[in-house]
Amino acid sequence: MWLDLSHMDKKEYLLMAEELVFGHQNPDTDAIVAAIAFAHLQQQRGYDTEAVALGEVNEETAYALDHFNHQAPRVITRASVEVKKVMLVDHNEPQQSVSDIADVKVTHVIDHHRIMGFDTSEPLYYRAEPVGCTSTILWELYNEENVTIPADIAGLMLSAIISDTLLFKSPTTTPLDQQAVKSLAKIANVDYETYGLEMLKAGTDLSSKSEQELIDLDAKSFDMSGHSVRVAQINTVDLDDVLARQTALKTAIQAEISEQHYDLFVLIITNILNSDSEAVVLGSDQGKAAFEKAFNKQLVNDRANLPGVVSRKKQVVPQLTEAY
Amino acid sequence: MWLDLSHMDKKEYLLMAEELVFGHQNPDTDAIVAAIAFAHLQQQRGYDTEAVALGEVNEETAYALDHFNHQAPRVITRASVEVKKVMLVDHNEPQQSVSDIADVKVTHVIDHHRIMGFDTSEPLYYRAEPVGCTSTILWELYNEENVTIPADIAGLMLSAIISDTLLFKSPTTTPLDQQAVKSLAKIANVDYETYGLEMLKAGTDLSSKSEQELIDLDAKSFDMSGHSVRVAQINTVDLDDVLARQTALKTAIQAEISEQHYDLFVLIITNILNSDSEAVVLGSDQGKAAFEKAFNKQLVNDRANLPGVVSRKKQVVPQLTEAY
Repeated sequence: MWLDLSHMDKKEYLLMAEELVFGHQNPDTDAIVAAIAFAHLQQQRGYDTEAVALGEVNEETAYALDHFNHQAPRVITRASVEVKKVMLVDHNEPQQSVSDIADVKVTHVIDHHRIMGFDTSEPLYYRAEPVGCTSTILWELYNEENVTIPADIAGLMLSAIISDTLLFKSPTTTPLDQQAVKSLAKIANVDYETYGLEMLKAGTDLSSKSEQELIDLDAKSFDMSGHSVRVAQINTVDLDDVLARQTALKTAIQAEISEQHYDLFVLIITNILNSDSEAVVLGSDQGKAAFEKAFNKQLVNDRANLPGVVSRKKQVVPQLTEAY
Repeated sequence: MWLDLSHMDKKEYLLMAEELVFGHQNPDTDAIVAAIAFAHLQQQRGYDTEAVALGEVNEETAYALDHFNHQAPRVITRASVEVKKVMLVDHNEPQQSVSDIADVKVTHVIDHHRIMGFDTSEPLYYRAEPVGCTSTILWELYNEENVTIPADIAGLMLSAIISDTLLFKSPTTTPLDQQAVKSLAKIANVDYETYGLEMLKAGTDLSSKSEQELIDLDAKSFDMSGHSVRVAQINTVDLDDVLARQTALKTAIQAEISEQHYDLFVLIITNILNSDSEAVVLGSDQGKAAFEKAFNKQLVNDRANLPGVVSRKKQVVPQLTEAY
């Protein structure tokens, strides 16, 4: 492979890290923070790493970065133009990763999701645990390696755990996540409950966003028995606020389905205060039937209420995968 | 799923563990030992586990078990008739696992191989490191969890590491493998160099084995771009001894190719004293061409010498995968 570096000056070229570290597309707080925290840990262990992102940070993440006075990672769209090796955090499925993931070697993965379609030709370092957040695993790694967590990174890590677990309300929460937040709060010197709710609320200011942006804010694609399924989630403190925009949301979803050929698009709108969700579901008849089977619910006007459902990973994706 | 327990008496039923722990088919010393060591570790952590095996132990493993006075795990051919959940050690690829792996849930994987075709519907505990042996990772886990390694299990673990690294001669060997063996040797109270060579030699007594048994002793199947490839390895201290049986070995390989529809069968005969190998290669024209491309060697009478090649994982499988 030939590297086109003509767009860089010599100083930039010399500053290039050997390995990039990044989370999934449409990054949430954990995808951004886990990249920052793992890149830092690996630097202490002698690796030449840089944390980058596969998209701009969302408002919740921006709030956390601002609060702990840390820069957002730069955004990349391709990795192989810069490096030969990468480290993945908070994801492993190729369709959630950088577009040219097939052209680079993955040397490390730190993740807390199912494993799907992730194939390598050589052994690698892979650390996954069924906990609420990648940053919880990173907290363990820092402790195992006896590496000090800087106060700003500790603040970001607890932000990621609070974000992924909705302040411990999500069923994905484990005792380890809670233990990590309490330990990190001491390092970051923050009242995690007060701060956490403020951060979550900062992420629910949706008024400035277009419908197109809303359905792409926290969306992931999944391959289910050969069908392409998109599951998006919006957090809010006022469900009616979002549902008032239902018609325009459906138009935006329908446009994405046509463009990306999704078999099914599920938009989960979650009230973070009472942990209930409303689903807007569009797609093929087969896809909608899979949804109805998965949740044992009839769709009415392409909608279904999902009381107590807050976790895409634990309460939506396995059920849909099973139904397909 | 309905469990047919009619073949068991009540006592057996009550003794059944909740989760089975096992290594790959055609188990080598690491596959057997890692199951024993991980099942024990998990018991200390509160899991109800039993180590089992997907085949009878080989002569090297029998030597180690006998030396450290530990029973061989019982052999199973199916898991779902006994349990709903399993833990995999020393492998992840489905075709190397128990025949009904699709019918059980994998909750833990401890491995040091590439990841291929391993898909789950839910998050799990996955720990892989690019080190020489699964038992090295288990040694780390025991240390991280502050669990004491019993002397007999320590002896078995160092046996597995010596087996996988050919007493540190394989290029898969890492400093961590050497560190683990030295630490385990103290616990097991054994001179690992003297013992290790004796153990390796015990595994090379091939005279009692049929050709059919020899090509199945340490053999694994791989999917390479849709082609089924079998790579078997025989360790010896006398290459000529094995090559004297070449004609009968080829007949046995050809029979397996016809029966299992392999595109390629590569038998690696490794001299463990000087770390050189001889390959016997049969299969389709395309398969043989892939081999020749992978090693930049012409096959002469279906054979090629591979100086310095001792590791299937590092020096054979990636090269063949790339060529396909």
